[in-house]
Amino acid sequence: MRVILLLAAAAALLADDKTAMLQKMDSQSPHYGEVSRKIWEFAEVGYKENKSSELLKSELKQAGFAIEAPIGGVPTAFTAAWGQGKPVIAIMGEYDALPGLSQDAVPERRPIVNGGPGHGCGHNLLGTASLFAAVTLKDWMAAHHIKGTLRFYGTPAEEGGGGKLYMARAGAFNGVDVVLSWHPADQNGASMASSLAIISAKFRFYGKAAHAAAAPDAGRSALDGLMIMGQSIEFLREHIPDSTRIHYVITNGGAAPNIVPDYAEMFLYARHPSMPVLDGIWERILKCARAGALASETRMEMELIDSAYNILPNDSLAALVDKNMRLVGGVTYTAWEQSFAETIRKTLPGRGQLGSQEKVEPPREGFTSASTDAGDISWMYPMAALSAATFVPGVPPHSWQSAACAGMSIGRKGMVVAAKGLVLTAMDLFTDPAQVTAAKADFEKRRAGYEYRSRIPADHKPPLNYRDNK
Amino acid sequence: MRVILLLAAAAALLADDKTAMLQKMDSQSPHYGEVSRKIWEFAEVGYKENKSSELLKSELKQAGFAIEAPIGGVPTAFTAAWGQGKPVIAIMGEYDALPGLSQDAVPERRPIVNGGPGHGCGHNLLGTASLFAAVTLKDWMAAHHIKGTLRFYGTPAEEGGGGKLYMARAGAFNGVDVVLSWHPADQNGASMASSLAIISAKFRFYGKAAHAAAAPDAGRSALDGLMIMGQSIEFLREHIPDSTRIHYVITNGGAAPNIVPDYAEMFLYARHPSMPVLDGIWERILKCARAGALASETRMEMELIDSAYNILPNDSLAALVDKNMRLVGGVTYTAWEQSFAETIRKTLPGRGQLGSQEKVEPPREGFTSASTDAGDISWMYPMAALSAATFVPGVPPHSWQSAACAGMSIGRKGMVVAAKGLVLTAMDLFTDPAQVTAAKADFEKRRAGYEYRSRIPADHKPPLNYRDNK
Amino acid sequence: MRVILLLAAAAALLADDKTAMLQKMDSQSPHYGEVSRKIWEFAEVGYKENKSSELLKSELKQAGFAIEAPIGGVPTAFTAAWGQGKPVIAIMGEYDALPGLSQDAVPERRPIVNGGPGHGCGHNLLGTASLFAAVTLKDWMAAHHIKGTLRFYGTPAEEGGGGKLYMARAGAFNGVDVVLSWHPADQNGASMASSLAIISAKFRFYGKAAHAAAAPDAGRSALDGLMIMGQSIEFLREHIPDSTRIHYVITNGGAAPNIVPDYAEMFLYARHPSMPVLDGIWERILKCARAGALASETRMEMELIDSAYNILPNDSLAALVDKNMRLVGGVTYTAWEQSFAETIRKTLPGRGQLGSQEKVEPPREGFTSASTDAGDISWMYPMAALSAATFVPGVPPHSWQSAACAGMSIGRKGMVVAAKGLVLTAMDLFTDPAQVTAAKADFEKRRAGYEYRSRIPADHKPPLNYRDNK
Amino acid sequence: MRVILLLAAAAALLADDKTAMLQKMDSQSPHYGEVSRKIWEFAEVGYKENKSSELLKSELKQAGFAIEAPIGGVPTAFTAAWGQGKPVIAIMGEYDALPGLSQDAVPERRPIVNGGPGHGCGHNLLGTASLFAAVTLKDWMAAHHIKGTLRFYGTPAEEGGGGKLYMARAGAFNGVDVVLSWHPADQNGASMASSLAIISAKFRFYGKAAHAAAAPDAGRSALDGLMIMGQSIEFLREHIPDSTRIHYVITNGGAAPNIVPDYAEMFLYARHPSMPVLDGIWERILKCARAGALASETRMEMELIDSAYNILPNDSLAALVDKNMRLVGGVTYTAWEQSFAETIRKTLPGRGQLGSQEKVEPPREGFTSASTDAGDISWMYPMAALSAATFVPGVPPHSWQSAACAGMSIGRKGMVVAAKGLVLTAMDLFTDPAQVTAAKADFEKRRAGYEYRSRIPADHKPPLNYRDNK
Repeated sequence: MRVILLLAAAAALLADDKTAMLQKMDSQSPHYGEVSRKIWEFAEVGYKENKSSELLKSELKQAGFAIEAPIGGVPTAFTAAWGQGKPVIAIMGEYDALPGLSQDAVPERRPIVNGGPGHGCGHNLLGTASLFAAVTLKDWMAAHHIKGTLRFYGTPAEEGGGGKLYMARAGAFNGVDVVLSWHPADQNGASMASSLAIISAKFRFYGKAAHAAAAPDAGRSALDGLMIMGQSIEFLREHIPDSTRIHYVITNGGAAPNIVPDYAEMFLYARHPSMPVLDGIWERILKCARAGALASETRMEMELIDSAYNILPNDSLAALVDKNMRLVGGVTYTAWEQSFAETIRKTLPGRGQLGSQEKVEPPREGFTSASTDAGDISWMYPMAALSAATFVPGVPPHSWQSAACAGMSIGRKGMVVAAKGLVLTAMDLFTDPAQVTAAKADFEKRRAGYEYRSRIPADHKPPLNYRDNK
Repeated sequence: MRVILLLAAAAALLADDKTAMLQKMDSQSPHYGEVSRKIWEFAEVGYKENKSSELLKSELKQAGFAIEAPIGGVPTAFTAAWGQGKPVIAIMGEYDALPGLSQDAVPERRPIVNGGPGHGCGHNLLGTASLFAAVTLKDWMAAHHIKGTLRFYGTPAEEGGGGKLYMARAGAFNGVDVVLSWHPADQNGASMASSLAIISAKFRFYGKAAHAAAAPDAGRSALDGLMIMGQSIEFLREHIPDSTRIHYVITNGGAAPNIVPDYAEMFLYARHPSMPVLDGIWERILKCARAGALASETRMEMELIDSAYNILPNDSLAALVDKNMRLVGGVTYTAWEQSFAETIRKTLPGRGQLGSQEKVEPPREGFTSASTDAGDISWMYPMAALSAATFVPGVPPHSWQSAACAGMSIGRKGMVVAAKGLVLTAMDLFTDPAQVTAAKADFEKRRAGYEYRSRIPADHKPPLNYRDNK
Repeated sequence: MRVILLLAAAAALLADDKTAMLQKMDSQSPHYGEVSRKIWEFAEVGYKENKSSELLKSELKQAGFAIEAPIGGVPTAFTAAWGQGKPVIAIMGEYDALPGLSQDAVPERRPIVNGGPGHGCGHNLLGTASLFAAVTLKDWMAAHHIKGTLRFYGTPAEEGGGGKLYMARAGAFNGVDVVLSWHPADQNGASMASSLAIISAKFRFYGKAAHAAAAPDAGRSALDGLMIMGQSIEFLREHIPDSTRIHYVITNGGAAPNIVPDYAEMFLYARHPSMPVLDGIWERILKCARAGALASETRMEMELIDSAYNILPNDSLAALVDKNMRLVGGVTYTAWEQSFAETIRKTLPGRGQLGSQEKVEPPREGFTSASTDAGDISWMYPMAALSAATFVPGVPPHSWQSAACAGMSIGRKGMVVAAKGLVLTAMDLFTDPAQVTAAKADFEKRRAGYEYRSRIPADHKPPLNYRDNK
Repeated sequence: MRVILLLAAAAALLADDKTAMLQKMDSQSPHYGEVSRKIWEFAEVGYKENKSSELLKSELKQAGFAIEAPIGGVPTAFTAAWGQGKPVIAIMGEYDALPGLSQDAVPERRPIVNGGPGHGCGHNLLGTASLFAAVTLKDWMAAHHIKGTLRFYGTPAEEGGGGKLYMARAGAFNGVDVVLSWHPADQNGASMASSLAIISAKFRFYGKAAHAAAAPDAGRSALDGLMIMGQSIEFLREHIPDSTRIHYVITNGGAAPNIVPDYAEMFLYARHPSMPVLDGIWERILKCARAGALASETRMEMELIDSAYNILPNDSLAALVDKNMRLVGGVTYTAWEQSFAETIRKTLPGRGQLGSQEKVEPPREGFTSASTDAGDISWMYPMAALSAATFVPGVPPHSWQSAACAGMSIGRKGMVVAAKGLVLTAMDLFTDPAQVTAAKADFEKRRAGYEYRSRIPADHKPPLNYRDNK
């Protein structure tokens, strides 16, 4: 009885706290806007985020967090911890850019560096909102003597490099109770969406060079091996489950036409809503690759590049985030931002609805066609997910339009929404043990006994150079 | 000294004999014309030559030959022997027809049975000329008390069935000193031409049926396996020696579109002027077949259908045949035959030269793009080869035009030329041991220590039904 | 007011009628069991159903129907009409067998004729139940002076031949108000399921023959054209909407390996839940076929074989059928039938549930992966559909198990269920104009203005020989 | 009569001249050795030979030649002329390096710049020997008042860029009587060898990008177009004349696996001993490319990169060169060079015979599997060709071994042999009009009325950036 009363009192207290917190965060947001802009300018691709991670680490160190870096052999991975005891609440932050998406913060296509990288997925905002949330929470915990441990995870190379997998393998997530994640989007709200499990690899064929006119029969063409593999995969498409995705490019198709190619490389992704089903499909892709080598008398080597589980949603965490997001509210544009948004939308006719950035959407199940290494974390620990409207409604990720938004005030406003959502949700988790318990119960129910196992081999080194073509 | 005198005397004697022999054969030729016409009408395909082989056997039996049949598990194979002791001279005769070449003996396309078989390679003449020669020689040997053994080989299924290989494997050729062979053609003369070594096989893929609309992912397509094999072979073409030939058809490409095919079959030939080189190419074809099965998760089985060495020419035998063919001379047309020939030639514009059938061509090295199981025999024993103009000049084998010629007087005249050439050459071999010795010496020189080994596995049964598609 | 009273009276009358009707039908069922068995024994494939259609026509003629035949150039298509005026109610009946499914009426695989056709889709029952219903209804209409026209449609070649399309094109369905259809199944009930729209065709490639060893460069391979088309289609699979199905077999892959094939043929089906989407996919398949011809310098001809729309369900007709099927009830097995069913089920482990044949399932939306030319009719006229458990639960169509059931008492019991369902539903339609009106309203709502257009070209002749391979 | 006497006197004079000339050239050779070494160090690839061409131009300008540059829009092409009137004798010089063949002048694999270009075909020697010959001839013409015009052709980008074709198209060769050419080799002698006619092009496919997981059906894959083209070409191989060569690499196979590639590029060479035959093959390659675009709904553009005729040998010029090369003699190694040569040969077991560099080989017909734009010139004007042993016997062109030789004394000694051969031959041509007449007569006889026509379209710009991949 007494407990209930106390909790009710705490709840009342918290409600006041939350309102104050939102006001306080508004006043602190300009600093984090600057941090996000710097990382936007760094625009560093996966595993090369040296300046970006240094900036985040220095902010956290200055705020009093204990930094650990590197993690699991990844120079740009780090953790920052504050507090002690239970619960252990984790906030994840990403900061890698995408190749080819260099773009100025203007509503028309204008690369800063032709062909250079850019923040087309808004990860400059992602890492910075998480930083903002972490520092804000630490101040609140210190001020209110809140028990528990807060951890920030600096997670590199989300875009195909699988940074979180190497951090988890190194034990960096041990002891965590609940993980909080978010992602830039064109809408606000708690997320229940799943994603596609993915495995990606580079398939390398090694043949025997020969003069292609003088002695083609003395050569063994690595390109032939790759072509036969590719065509075998096309035949495979008919005989695998619906909703599978297999897509590949040829990253090396031979050096010069007059030499039988002794080297060729394919970079391939395979995806499916379920990892165990994907495992079976992957076995068959491997057979196609081996068949290419067999038929062409070449040698094939596969280098696993990335792997990610589909996201396991969590019902009670989604409900909690939803409740808090409704306190936070959406994004309101100034006249100039409205004009920017309208100009952007003209480049994407027929998509989204301007104005929806002001709303908070209810959580909905379903799955997106994207993949993320946050998926793996969601099969290890209860994970909350939220979206914030950092992009003009209708702007898809991995576009120059999203890169433009991520570098100006629209992106920064969305970032503040995200940071607020994370903070309010963490406040609940730190002060209401029942929320953590419910999150864990939902986690167990959803995974239904399935034991997570990383698809990355135990001795596999992080592909620190996966953004380079051999 | 004395030997020389005797041999000179023998030579003189023989010259008289030969002239008489040619006259005698002219008088006996009508009977053999009728035999050849009957076999032309039987038109039985490989390993099904029941009536044809029965007719030949009955002729030989009646002439006093000792018949042995069947040979090596082949019902239509037989040998017929006469005489005893050395030398042992073999004459080979074929009598199988070709599917789809049914044709009346008229100079325009007119099948007797639509889609039925016909003697498009003139084997009705082949077996009968050899019969004619054998019976004639036996009479001469008996009359002149010639020492030695004469053997007739009834060799079925030359057109892709490899009958001679199973006869040789059964030991039927043991003890032979020299083999005489001939083939219908559009010219006369001793032959020094080689042929292409060949290996042929049926590749069968076994998958798993499934409803192609309801559950394509539950099926494993045998047709996919075959298609991937086929395409792998196309890639192979660039990286094998020039002059290789690989050609295939799909003899079973699935039963019905709405079922994932659980069975598919490819019938493939590979050829090259050299058998050891072909062995290497064959290994790589097998890899393509295995790759097809691997990539499609199906099972592949290969059934070897046929194999033949390239022909090993024999210089001294060619010289001997050439000498005798000049005694025999070519073919002269009547006015009606000339008219028939001219009509035929209009269907084959730009080929050959009418009149050349009257000449005897000198032996020339080179190689034809055909393959024959006589090739294997030529690597086991010294083998003579000759051609006779059974076809109008310019008419290629395996055409309706050659089937037409083989059924009328032009074919029969060429057949008599062949029979005469065989007889005169055998007379020399029976009476002049030096010719046999020279033939053997040339044989050893040409094969240069290479040990013949049949490409048919020891336990492989004759493909008696190779003309049926499964 | 008066009308309502009359209708209420009619309804009461009808309820009595229906009970009597079901009893009467039980007593007449043996005769129709014999008819179905005869057609089962005829086992005639599409467009060759001469004896089957004659038998049905003679039954209908004897019952007083006016027969019209042939229809639209199809010898085995016919209509049988009775009565006059509105409404016009159509009942469709099929009677074609499937190649390769010859099977005795025993619970183990035992073909009557090896490789011969059999009633693996139960169309012997389909046509006969419709006959049974038509004759029963006619008697009832005559006895009760029911106004309206009853038409029986003898629709051949449902299995890939598209018989109904040619009948519709010839105007045979003009004036129909509602169409009643049913299909053998392993359960009973009204059907709301849609099906897959389908287009099928034979793609024929014409090249230039040449000796494959002597002059491969003089040949143009029809098989190459087909192989390139096939491979191109495999590449297509990635870039077409999910739920598409494309499946093909090679019905002619060349005559003999030593000839460059001058003819090759592929038989291909394409399917999708929506015909307009399928139209777009079909255009792209055609481009693949043209690409095969272009790259191989061969000529391609497409012969459209079949086309069928997805079924357009009708809500109010489904409700009406459901109501009547609940009066009819399911199928009860004797001890021997139960034993037969159990033996059958052992050959199909893990499927269906024995006993469910006694129930009547509620109508459910969704779509099956089958295709049927009834789909076209459903886009032209309101169409009711029902299933009856002619097959042991768990037995899929197009299996030897279904062919076995279709030839014995289990199949015949299901057939009676179907006939009863058709009769009771037609009685409602003939006596209650509101039912017809409601059916038409639902029809208009579902098709939403889409104008049906047959995918068969106006001048396309029925493919009367589509079951023969060229 | 008088003419003959004068010519005889001239011949005697010339014999003395030639001996003196060879001695004089030996004394001047060190300077040209230095020039060749500088160009070897520049190692500039096709159309980028800025420093190399500048060096050659400055040497020729200083010697009194009139320089014309650029030619036909090619910055590194030039001509240098001296003298006037007839005959007009041309000497061609090349100076482009090969990508990837950077190599120090040592007998083991040691790149100077990893992956950088190198003179693996000895063109640093080629251009310099021609320079040496031109300057020497000019001095001799001036000293002896020899009538006629001497022209030096600085011909860039022989290795796949077709520099000579653009120079000829610009009219730079107009008026030439005889062209002298040579090439570095591993032996000395006049050359009668032909080469392979070649056409090369980049095939570019343009599709439509789409997210490969979210909307693969919205994309049109440029890579699919390219893959289908490639596969179609593999099928083509069976049905084109023997001795054809088709070889390709994929220079752009898509940007990233998660995007449907909207761009892909193949770089393809086709070759055959006869240009008219190659024309026919090229038409069929184009069809394969169009088929790839058709089947994948992408757009294909071909950019012709290079084209070269097979070399037309000239009998009388070959005899003349042969006569002079016998005066010149071969290359003698020092002990150190011998040791260098032996070390090199250990890296190429089983090739060539050390010592043969001292001999002069007689001219022999046949064809090499290389291709050169000198082929086009040989179909426009009578062309002499000679080889000199700049490479250790057994060293093939386009190898690191040849790049090593080209940078040290062995290469330079061979270069002097070539320069001498060119000089003596030109002396004959300038002083004996009958030699020019005979060369022209042979030219007419060999080309037999065939009218040369460049395979480069009239409006085609030189592919100055062909060494860059897009």
